[in-house]
Amino acid sequence: MKNKYLGIFENELYGNILPFWMKHSPDWKYGGYFTCLDRKGRVYDDRKYMWLLGRMVWMFSKLYNTVEKKKEWLRLAKLGADFMMKHGKAPDGRIYFSLTRDGRPYSMQRKIFSECFYALGLGEYAKAAGDKIIYNDALDIFRKTVELSRNPSKLGRPRLSGQEQTSSLAVPMILLNLAEELETPENSGYFAKIRKECVKEIRMHIRPEMKVVLETVQADGKFIDTTEGRLVNPGHAIEAGWFLIHHALKENDRELIKLGQNMIDWSFDIGWDKKYGGIYQFLAINGHVPVQPEWNMKYFWPVAEASYASLLLYSLTGRKKYFDRFRKVSDYALGHFSDPEYGGWFGYLDRQGERVYGLKGTPYKAFFHIPRFLLYSINLLKQGAEK
Amino acid sequence: MKNKYLGIFENELYGNILPFWMKHSPDWKYGGYFTCLDRKGRVYDDRKYMWLLGRMVWMFSKLYNTVEKKKEWLRLAKLGADFMMKHGKAPDGRIYFSLTRDGRPYSMQRKIFSECFYALGLGEYAKAAGDKIIYNDALDIFRKTVELSRNPSKLGRPRLSGQEQTSSLAVPMILLNLAEELETPENSGYFAKIRKECVKEIRMHIRPEMKVVLETVQADGKFIDTTEGRLVNPGHAIEAGWFLIHHALKENDRELIKLGQNMIDWSFDIGWDKKYGGIYQFLAINGHVPVQPEWNMKYFWPVAEASYASLLLYSLTGRKKYFDRFRKVSDYALGHFSDPEYGGWFGYLDRQGERVYGLKGTPYKAFFHIPRFLLYSINLLKQGAEK
Repeated sequence: MKNKYLGIFENELYGNILPFWMKHSPDWKYGGYFTCLDRKGRVYDDRKYMWLLGRMVWMFSKLYNTVEKKKEWLRLAKLGADFMMKHGKAPDGRIYFSLTRDGRPYSMQRKIFSECFYALGLGEYAKAAGDKIIYNDALDIFRKTVELSRNPSKLGRPRLSGQEQTSSLAVPMILLNLAEELETPENSGYFAKIRKECVKEIRMHIRPEMKVVLETVQADGKFIDTTEGRLVNPGHAIEAGWFLIHHALKENDRELIKLGQNMIDWSFDIGWDKKYGGIYQFLAINGHVPVQPEWNMKYFWPVAEASYASLLLYSLTGRKKYFDRFRKVSDYALGHFSDPEYGGWFGYLDRQGERVYGLKGTPYKAFFHIPRFLLYSINLLKQGAEK
Repeated sequence: MKNKYLGIFENELYGNILPFWMKHSPDWKYGGYFTCLDRKGRVYDDRKYMWLLGRMVWMFSKLYNTVEKKKEWLRLAKLGADFMMKHGKAPDGRIYFSLTRDGRPYSMQRKIFSECFYALGLGEYAKAAGDKIIYNDALDIFRKTVELSRNPSKLGRPRLSGQEQTSSLAVPMILLNLAEELETPENSGYFAKIRKECVKEIRMHIRPEMKVVLETVQADGKFIDTTEGRLVNPGHAIEAGWFLIHHALKENDRELIKLGQNMIDWSFDIGWDKKYGGIYQFLAINGHVPVQPEWNMKYFWPVAEASYASLLLYSLTGRKKYFDRFRKVSDYALGHFSDPEYGGWFGYLDRQGERVYGLKGTPYKAFFHIPRFLLYSINLLKQGAEK
């Protein structure tokens, strides 16, 4: 059974996802990648989005660094990395959110994630290119990102007197993931401290008494009784769960592994739609519903995260229920999102599972969650096969 | 038939919508209105949203000014207006987007609409209260809003070198509507100029050769071949159409009336879902789909706008097709959104027409589009009855 999924996943990654993005996404004229691709891979908007460029640079570099030293993967990583380094930074050192096709700045978010994905992509690419200067650039942006995360007013969002200071799950989880990706023996002291702070902040979002992970809490961890404070993003919490387990495995911390397992279990239990399958985009606690009208839609990335997280828990516990969950989620994901006709994955379904459109890439969806969960799952399935 | 709808609409406004919001929305302790109300009217988030406060102050004042001098309507308008005047303004004169229940500032948008709805609400309330100072405050905010709309960088959104200067349909249409509401004989020269500029800018969004109204064009009117440039918001375009007709009726401009009619006809033709009914939230031109995953959902306000716009066109042309359209849209709207059990209207349906939740109010939905289209339609239905 595991070998069956190994074959399916390898075929999906190397026979479907990679060819689609390698063929349609690179901009060989101006550099970087097109991410707004329709069902057939045609570019419907030629702007460059830094979240996605950073993520794709990371993905191509990761394939090169961990799977095979294929020159075309390195060349693709370089195409994105060069564009980011040349055009991505504003004069004040912040990273733009979007640029024109030829690299002129188009928009800046009041969030830290352009910086995060810049550091993620360039850090992995530096390993592939063996370039210490690029690694230091990534590390520098990471340090700035940590500072920005502690002083959100520097993002152009001054805190007003009625607004509580909050902690958003997205921040410690991405910083923890970045620490996993960027840490080297030379800076392990710095990153150990960062990781410890991230784990502490993630813990504040976990509510064992309710079996739930909250997206937003007060900076001191207190519950906020508003729409934001009651919001649950189950896919996000599942992703944070496996980030935490990766960290815990490194630290050999059994209590933290169990905590990550709980985050994944609880979030899957409330997030999985028992009637139609798929994972709800948003939920709310205490009998509320989220105010977002799209809350019950099924997006591509939560099931990608849940598939890998389930397999990870299976590999750690050997419990059949996790393999069954992996199978259920993967079958749903492949069955609903993969497009055997034109390649790639669709992105967005309504609650019942009907596609809202055929687009393969958007300003927020490209070549990242899907190839990452496939690659990471393949690694686990191979380990199992070798045992 | 018209008398049937007059009865239905009067009952809906005075027997359903008004009682629900008068009972559950006022905050008699701190002033202002609660707008986050669940199906039964219970407050699920107690923050105050300035878009909605301004709109509700306008609505209660309009009822008082044009229907009946009911003291309770004036008292309700005052409850919101006092809160807005006391707490709504930032030190730099901008208007906050949201505040805590007791009036401390919570968030500020990089958009002009908090200012717009401040001016709208206070302008109508000034008439009800007979207070020239409040009217001048509304007018002052309106003037500032016009300035902000011409210098978006003052909103904290500096224009980057790769970004084209754009015109967003939302801006000239709301300013035109505000001119209709705020103009007095003393300042008709100023407002005539404003209205002329708004009409000119709205015209740039109209594409007769494609029979479509675009949300975003370049500042000089050129088409932008991006996701934003191809976007159509049919409900918005229909609302802009009747704003334009109101202006044109005042100016007795037959060409402009015809233009507004075209905007409504084209937008309804592409916006109405012939399979399931309702109006799509977003569409795109040239064979594209919008990137917004929620594009095919059915929101409450586009059908409210389309219902009134159809009746307005019927009253102007006498053509049966417009009354048939009014009937079709109204039957859909009342059948899908009105809640006879607990009062008020639901807000959001999936494409097929199934409710995504029972909430009656949110940070973006309160007591405005629904009572406005009911009141304006009642006025037209009464005129017809008197003919």
